[in-house]
Amino acid sequence: MSVLIAGTVALDSIHTSSAIHHELLGGSAAYAALAAALTNPVQLCAIVGSDFPAEHRALLTGHGIDLDNVESVEGGKTFRWTGRYHDDMNHRETLAVSIDVLEQFAPKLNPAASAVRVLLLANMSPDNQIDVLKQCLGNPFIIADSMDLWINIARERLQDLMQKVDLFVINEDEAKLFVDTTNLIKAGHKLQEMGPKYVVVKKGEHGAILFGPDQLFMTCAYPLRAVADPTGAGDTFAGGMAGYLAGLGRKDFSFADLSNAVVYGSVLASFTCEEFGVKRLAALTRDEAEARLSEFKACTTIG
Amino acid sequence: MSVLIAGTVALDSIHTSSAIHHELLGGSAAYAALAAALTNPVQLCAIVGSDFPAEHRALLTGHGIDLDNVESVEGGKTFRWTGRYHDDMNHRETLAVSIDVLEQFAPKLNPAASAVRVLLLANMSPDNQIDVLKQCLGNPFIIADSMDLWINIARERLQDLMQKVDLFVINEDEAKLFVDTTNLIKAGHKLQEMGPKYVVVKKGEHGAILFGPDQLFMTCAYPLRAVADPTGAGDTFAGGMAGYLAGLGRKDFSFADLSNAVVYGSVLASFTCEEFGVKRLAALTRDEAEARLSEFKACTTIG
Repeated sequence: MSVLIAGTVALDSIHTSSAIHHELLGGSAAYAALAAALTNPVQLCAIVGSDFPAEHRALLTGHGIDLDNVESVEGGKTFRWTGRYHDDMNHRETLAVSIDVLEQFAPKLNPAASAVRVLLLANMSPDNQIDVLKQCLGNPFIIADSMDLWINIARERLQDLMQKVDLFVINEDEAKLFVDTTNLIKAGHKLQEMGPKYVVVKKGEHGAILFGPDQLFMTCAYPLRAVADPTGAGDTFAGGMAGYLAGLGRKDFSFADLSNAVVYGSVLASFTCEEFGVKRLAALTRDEAEARLSEFKACTTIG
Repeated sequence: MSVLIAGTVALDSIHTSSAIHHELLGGSAAYAALAAALTNPVQLCAIVGSDFPAEHRALLTGHGIDLDNVESVEGGKTFRWTGRYHDDMNHRETLAVSIDVLEQFAPKLNPAASAVRVLLLANMSPDNQIDVLKQCLGNPFIIADSMDLWINIARERLQDLMQKVDLFVINEDEAKLFVDTTNLIKAGHKLQEMGPKYVVVKKGEHGAILFGPDQLFMTCAYPLRAVADPTGAGDTFAGGMAGYLAGLGRKDFSFADLSNAVVYGSVLASFTCEEFGVKRLAALTRDEAEARLSEFKACTTIG
């Protein structure tokens, strides 16, 4: 079943203690689309400048990702982000951001995109997320991801968004920031009270927690011996979830479906961390993902 | 099957943002013994001063804990620790420590204690841990816990100890410190290379990882909506593991046995966090522990 993924497409420059890479394909929607495309047709909604490299475009279409809803601004510059990771890979700082074409983003969906049954609003401004959501007329299952920036500068719009989504995804520190508590379980429940039926709190190397109406599901993360670049892991996670759910071929999901989606998203995210940018994710096969999923289940199953 | 637990017995004064409590029963061996005593006879090896309150002694013996190997130093003062937790409950600072009788601790085991088949060397100096270990003549399964203090001031003795134990338990930050890596999976494997067949890395609210000879097992922690006082949670975890293993009534354990012990220890540790000091742990029943274990399994089982 087709998935619509709306978010950012970017050119990322990434510094770690081991290497620096310039202008890699990045952005929340790029990672999420590649993750979802492993199992499903994906329609991507984003904006780029005319400087967006043909090779990045080819990489996306080569994975069966439909770019009809990606606006290309003639003479515009693609959104760029430069970041540096600390030695422990769990903390990063933004060195530079050039918003450029993102500022004029006014998403417009074609009829096929507006009819999808699974929609992922990957991380971007809540305004843009709501613009996309309003154009989806097929009563889709709606997943939204966000980040601290929007909690800090667009809290009210984010709250508006949360009343319209089925599943809200956010990372641990941001969840605590959003609802002002140091207890993660309390944070998850408070976020649910803001609207979404389901909340997923991403904990990076420590896994994720899914909060349902009257249930909770927790999972660890796949144990990586080395992390080359965690950029996009959270986006991959959300895209993997969306892809898993769309792959079920229906629109009503049980708590067990959502739990499995969390595990699947978490396993896909582990691949993203293994190389810089989308490199590992773009090379990933379904068999590799399935094999790691089995391995993961074996080392988390209580005897 | 009887468990021998050697470690510290202390009087703890604990400051959190919600309350301050003075001279509570504490110490690694007190928490661990109460945890193991839920399912097994426990022999405790420790040292206290003559100021050690009769009510604390009564609490321990009331749980069937044999104090014959607890030395009481006439005129000596019991080890005291005062600490303060930060608001997030994940970080604490030591405000005061009075070693007192601990300085002269020369553990001596009676014949019953030296014949046990499961030994937990709870957190104390590696010298004391090795002293106890040498007196155990029943070829026991040996678990040892430690902390950053000993890594920093007694690294060589700790390395000696590690060559003699079956299972080494340590928390996440300390594991990374010990083997100088930021990657937890690498840290676990490096610790194994130092001797122990099994290594457990405790991750507090994020659960624990068990490293076996050629397998790995990961578990989350029971989701607590509120933490009153995390003091002793790690000791409870180790004591719970020792108790679980002793309860199996044999001395050779499979990887699945160890995995189940990790889950059981983790669940017991969650009770300790719910109230100050040993209060919740001391009131815990087997039925409550079993019920939480079932609940925990339900919210971590992949569908």
